Amino acid sequence: MEKTDVLIVGGSAAGLMAGLTVKRRYPEKKVTIMRKASKTPVPCGIPYIYGTLKAVEKNNMPDEGFIKQGLQLNTLAVESIDRGNKTADLADGTRIAYDKLILATGSYPAMPPIPGMQTGNVFGIKKEPEYLQNIQKALESSRHVVVIGGGFIGVEMAEQIAKMAQAGSHDEPVNISLIEMLPNCLMMACEQEFCIDAERELSEMGINVMTNAQVQAIQGNGKVTGVQLASGETIPADAVVVGIGVTPNIDLARQIGLEADPRMGIKVDAYMRTDDPDIFAAGDCAAKFSFFDGQPTGIRLASVAASEGMIAASNLYHPLRKCMGAVGAFGTTVGNSSIGAAGLTTKAADAADIPYVVGEAVFPNRHPGSLPGCVANMKAKLLFSRDTGKIIGGHVRGGESTADMVNIVAAAIQGGLTAEELATMQYATHPLLTASPLGYHVMLAAENASVKMSDNRPSQQ
Amino acid sequence: MEKTDVLIVGGSAAGLMAGLTVKRRYPEKKVTIMRKASKTPVPCGIPYIYGTLKAVEKNNMPDEGFIKQGLQLNTLAVESIDRGNKTADLADGTRIAYDKLILATGSYPAMPPIPGMQTGNVFGIKKEPEYLQNIQKALESSRHVVVIGGGFIGVEMAEQIAKMAQAGSHDEPVNISLIEMLPNCLMMACEQEFCIDAERELSEMGINVMTNAQVQAIQGNGKVTGVQLASGETIPADAVVVGIGVTPNIDLARQIGLEADPRMGIKVDAYMRTDDPDIFAAGDCAAKFSFFDGQPTGIRLASVAASEGMIAASNLYHPLRKCMGAVGAFGTTVGNSSIGAAGLTTKAADAADIPYVVGEAVFPNRHPGSLPGCVANMKAKLLFSRDTGKIIGGHVRGGESTADMVNIVAAAIQGGLTAEELATMQYATHPLLTASPLGYHVMLAAENASVKMSDNRPSQQ
Repeated sequence: MEKTDVLIVGGSAAGLMAGLTVKRRYPEKKVTIMRKASKTPVPCGIPYIYGTLKAVEKNNMPDEGFIKQGLQLNTLAVESIDRGNKTADLADGTRIAYDKLILATGSYPAMPPIPGMQTGNVFGIKKEPEYLQNIQKALESSRHVVVIGGGFIGVEMAEQIAKMAQAGSHDEPVNISLIEMLPNCLMMACEQEFCIDAERELSEMGINVMTNAQVQAIQGNGKVTGVQLASGETIPADAVVVGIGVTPNIDLARQIGLEADPRMGIKVDAYMRTDDPDIFAAGDCAAKFSFFDGQPTGIRLASVAASEGMIAASNLYHPLRKCMGAVGAFGTTVGNSSIGAAGLTTKAADAADIPYVVGEAVFPNRHPGSLPGCVANMKAKLLFSRDTGKIIGGHVRGGESTADMVNIVAAAIQGGLTAEELATMQYATHPLLTASPLGYHVMLAAENASVKMSDNRPSQQ
Repeated sequence: MEKTDVLIVGGSAAGLMAGLTVKRRYPEKKVTIMRKASKTPVPCGIPYIYGTLKAVEKNNMPDEGFIKQGLQLNTLAVESIDRGNKTADLADGTRIAYDKLILATGSYPAMPPIPGMQTGNVFGIKKEPEYLQNIQKALESSRHVVVIGGGFIGVEMAEQIAKMAQAGSHDEPVNISLIEMLPNCLMMACEQEFCIDAERELSEMGINVMTNAQVQAIQGNGKVTGVQLASGETIPADAVVVGIGVTPNIDLARQIGLEADPRMGIKVDAYMRTDDPDIFAAGDCAAKFSFFDGQPTGIRLASVAASEGMIAASNLYHPLRKCMGAVGAFGTTVGNSSIGAAGLTTKAADAADIPYVVGEAVFPNRHPGSLPGCVANMKAKLLFSRDTGKIIGGHVRGGESTADMVNIVAAAIQGGLTAEELATMQYATHPLLTASPLGYHVMLAAENASVKMSDNRPSQQ
């Protein structure tokens, strides 16, 4: 019987990061990653297959790097696990013994419980190269495309389908509609003014953005013909892409008797341990709690998965590292703009009953502003706890460095830095790379918040 | 007699930031900024006048924003100050009374003490639009240009003169030489491998990079003809640009009896107060101490100046904010690459006797790496104190977001974050904007350092 030290079920962000972490910390351990798909698509890269990369295979992570770092990659499915004997049975009938097991089984695309979801040319966004290829074929032959869900994946898909059409994939114009139930796209993750900016970018690309719109049924006999809304309106559709979120894949965990909630995921503690001392879970399949209040949260991002994978792997033999909870840090591009955000929005802070102070800064992202490629109105909006002065959230909108810049905010949140500290810090600036030292966005927004919180009297320190 | 609440002498980074800070905190105060030049050039933008902006006036900060925020801008020179009566006499004979005074008189370009420095077409880099125009004229009519000094300003000047020539400013090819005394360019600020990368970029642009080379004399009668090196070699030159650093401008401070060192600058405490309780100093003219060991330092950057200006202004009426000392955070571009760095280099840590651990990461700055515009080998190198685990320095080399990314490092240094914390944090990632969540440079380099420091045993926390 084959033996491995660490068996990891799942080969996306959490599983790969877990494997790499084991090899960094314990180079002598044998690490086997079970991955059903022949290749791992970059999960966040899926929308970019259609407009930017123009080929499914360009979005696959190359295996060479992982193999070079000593990981064993195995594409057989795990059929069952014997926790008592610590063995796994694979799809070809072979059995593999493990010492430690990490479940990184990921998630399924969530599908709305409405009639017609099984109609042809209605797609979820599965992380499977062959399925993604089918989406591409359907899009190429469709004149009316409807995207259901205005969160990140939906917005990115709609934007990329528009780019695909702009690049001449079709002889005739393509009608693209994006349908969102809430008053704004991206509303679960972004401040409203940033959502409205994103919607404007989408509209300027010719996308029909429909908010406050609920899908009631998919129409069509065999192949989709339209999407019927609660308002009674029907949007013609030759293809429908659904991006309304994900559901944790707890199938294997349940099968082997681990505690897991269909909505929240596999139960883990802050060390990513399940109830079985030799079994860990990380990534989309694992339950999450919020960094801010410790409450359960549905934040499922590749960055959270990677962090959890690293933490789980670090704790296999001793509890070394604790998970701080999901912060929610991300970036995206929409049309000619990009957005980065981390932590709480004003809406989320209100919901969590955390009193806050907002600081904002609008400043060119190059200096002088006459430099070619300068984004004149790059914007930061930061949130600080009124009680502690610590930063609890932030958005940056503008040039290509929004995500890297918002990672200053992400690090500051996780490091517990205050408005006062972020205002008086020194930041690297350069004419061709950043805002001016007078207007570096994080600094200036923090200073504006600090002024609001200050009574200009001597500090007690 | 005219009266102002806050009189600021100097209208560059420190002075303007001080003025803006006063108006943010005390909107009712009258703030007057004395600035000799008709316009304020972006100080870090000066090299970009020649190759990128192609005009001196494009590098000026627009005054409108400052005026709109309530600052009074005055272009008369301050001739003298009466500290007892708290008045300043201006070049036109008028007198202005102040309540608080901030000296932000900046610095002069340092010139080497060698024969021939007064020869025609030998230029320092003064922050004066007319002088900068004269440099441009001289460069346009020169076939042999020598830049003395391979620090930031020298490297940037050489690079921009090469771009200017590439863009067709000259009928004949231009010979550009960059002369540096030390074994590498940028050596005071950067890790050696990053210096070597920068030198390669310069060489690929056709610049003759001469390191370990000392200038002995400027040759020429009336107008420069050559630069003579200690080796005996003479480099032909029609124009020479000197960028070897700056000397604090302490003229006014000395004239009014404040303690000031010609090399270190005006004596200030951590609240940016001079010996006179109503006079503050900030920016290049003020003495600096290191964030790391409190020792005097020569780090003079616009970002340090802006931070000090903010701190001085915050402390005018009460000691509100302390200066943490100069961290040294900066970015620059060289040819097709860019570098960001913050804090100590390995060399500086050795000199300060701080034991350290290095963590490195080389990873594409987009994911998948097949995306257009991806820099495949973006690199981060981070330094952590072996004793405390805290980050003390870091470099990032690669795409356009190096400076913003190194500001995660800058904030982490100033916030006292550890390798362990930076490794397990969640960072925003996105295919078109950042590295993959498996390879986000700051995270991965911190993790690599953390592994080196860890014995994989349970933490004591």
